[in-house]
Amino acid sequence: MRVHGQAYRTIAVADDGWSVAVIDQTRLPFAFELRHLQSLEQAADAIRDMVVRGAPLIGVTAAYGMALGMRVDASDAGVHGAVERLGGARPTAVNLRWALARMESALLREIPARRVERAYAEAALIADEDVAACASIGRHGASILRRLGEARGGGPVHVLTHCNAGWLACVDWGTALAPVYSAHDAGVPVHVYVDETRPRNQGGALTAFELGAHGGPHTVIADNAGGHLMQHGLVDVCIVGSDRTTATGDVANKIGTYLKALAANDNGIPFYAALPSSTIDWTMRDGLREVPIEERSPREVTHVRGRAEEGRLLEVEVVSPGSPVANPAFDVTPARLVTGIITERGIAAASREGLLSLYPEEKLS
Amino acid sequence: MRVHGQAYRTIAVADDGWSVAVIDQTRLPFAFELRHLQSLEQAADAIRDMVVRGAPLIGVTAAYGMALGMRVDASDAGVHGAVERLGGARPTAVNLRWALARMESALLREIPARRVERAYAEAALIADEDVAACASIGRHGASILRRLGEARGGGPVHVLTHCNAGWLACVDWGTALAPVYSAHDAGVPVHVYVDETRPRNQGGALTAFELGAHGGPHTVIADNAGGHLMQHGLVDVCIVGSDRTTATGDVANKIGTYLKALAANDNGIPFYAALPSSTIDWTMRDGLREVPIEERSPREVTHVRGRAEEGRLLEVEVVSPGSPVANPAFDVTPARLVTGIITERGIAAASREGLLSLYPEEKLS
Repeated sequence: MRVHGQAYRTIAVADDGWSVAVIDQTRLPFAFELRHLQSLEQAADAIRDMVVRGAPLIGVTAAYGMALGMRVDASDAGVHGAVERLGGARPTAVNLRWALARMESALLREIPARRVERAYAEAALIADEDVAACASIGRHGASILRRLGEARGGGPVHVLTHCNAGWLACVDWGTALAPVYSAHDAGVPVHVYVDETRPRNQGGALTAFELGAHGGPHTVIADNAGGHLMQHGLVDVCIVGSDRTTATGDVANKIGTYLKALAANDNGIPFYAALPSSTIDWTMRDGLREVPIEERSPREVTHVRGRAEEGRLLEVEVVSPGSPVANPAFDVTPARLVTGIITERGIAAASREGLLSLYPEEKLS
Repeated sequence: MRVHGQAYRTIAVADDGWSVAVIDQTRLPFAFELRHLQSLEQAADAIRDMVVRGAPLIGVTAAYGMALGMRVDASDAGVHGAVERLGGARPTAVNLRWALARMESALLREIPARRVERAYAEAALIADEDVAACASIGRHGASILRRLGEARGGGPVHVLTHCNAGWLACVDWGTALAPVYSAHDAGVPVHVYVDETRPRNQGGALTAFELGAHGGPHTVIADNAGGHLMQHGLVDVCIVGSDRTTATGDVANKIGTYLKALAANDNGIPFYAALPSSTIDWTMRDGLREVPIEERSPREVTHVRGRAEEGRLLEVEVVSPGSPVANPAFDVTPARLVTGIITERGIAAASREGLLSLYPEEKLS
């Protein structure tokens, strides 16, 4: 996607041919800066500190982190150690484990002398596959928006989204926003209500930034406002991303997603999750019991980062000092509240049967 | 209630015998400062700028604003003008109109020469009645918490609340928090999950402050987190306040309340609104269609006020610059999602029949 008129991916090998350039998402929307990862540790820190975030991008960053690790230690022990180090950076995103398992398997099949080259090649392949998957999610999802647009017979289709599942969460295009970009670029009028997504404000900061940069009409709202908008007929469809989706269609996503799904359900509004199949955890049946939910630092709730009047980025304290804080980062939306799951192969019902109809090869698992 | 060991009401006539001292709630939780209102205009501005907020306190402030206005112009035109000026400060809170109608009626029955004195007396009466109503709400609501505590047989009762409906929203005690204080003071272990309540953070700033000052166990959470907590059995009951409740039991309250009510309903958790009967709008039957919803400044969403490292209170920008913003301040929770309404006369079903059983005199209206 384009920023200041130039096309970017969120992650790419730098001009030096080995370091890994990422957009520093902790600086957005007020500064657009690249950061160069030069070691496994820097890649793991970038994932943990959310310099990169979004399930697909976390997976690709981990893959490149493996490549950086192989430059230092390409032994079997080096492969295993790198997988362990990177795998611990974020607990909820299944793409992280998926990408690491794929890298580990590919690398152990090579002799150590070839592992650096193979790691960069495999990471590039994962990145390219993610771009292709997101583009395909966009095409499938755009058909929903086109149909809703025809049904309402004029005016934009109003989409509500939560957190950032746009191209900044992926390598390009995005998941939940890919249908929006695809429809928008094809001339279907679309308008997006963007939840600000406390505590880290990925909606107000990142989703609004990328929609603004691409020229997509949008309105930022507090996370509290979506239900009210749905009650008053102002939302036609909800589309969110996912950090992990069970084989039965339970959708783990940014904390607060479940509340929006309840409101959509209460108001007869379709609710979709858009995700590449690498986000599906085929080993899980019950999202509420099985998906590990990351508990993040209280400081994300007690402090808010933003731009002060003089232009400086700084944090201000917003919670009464000394009050205890809880900060679960994800919740699980049960499949019964999910109208459909938009994947690179098409749109499935949020159920084991629905998902297997698109991915029959997983019946064996 | 007590702050730094001293008992306060949120509003009182100052030692000079005529100006009106209020706690400046825009400075909390980082500074505890009184502000002296000396004119009708200052009272109206204090309501509009949320120096005072909370439906009951808005009503009392408006009543004292009438008294300040009578000092300048106690003619019939002065009474009508003051009602108009104060009534326009906040559109959703019904207590504002209720208090102004009561003041208007009382003042027009007096000759102008007696109106100043009468206005102060009537405002003091409204304040005292609010304190008595809140204390009574506390006693009735505490019975619910006591019963839930006995049913769970050990450990604290976990209450989730949204926004600030504590003593800072009233003159003393509070509405939604009155049962918590009442139970806590009676030795029933209670723990409160406090929604931070974007965009103005009244939960994280005010509710956390007053619970902390009184010694009530609590945990601040992002507005997005409540559904997840309820899914995992961590919440026993939700109690919120209300800015206007219809004669049929629809509850207008701070934006986001509806989302929590949906989650409570989905997880079989009781959901109560606690309010003095002055909050009931007996003329309204359909909250979604009839309650006017205040649209507040986009700046409340784009900027967050807090304390910087050096101790200064300042605002930081948190939304991508140039992105449009919508900021509805309230939503309506339909009566079907409300387990009961806790008033100064007891606990009623959220229905016309339920409310009329406690307020039979309203059958005539």
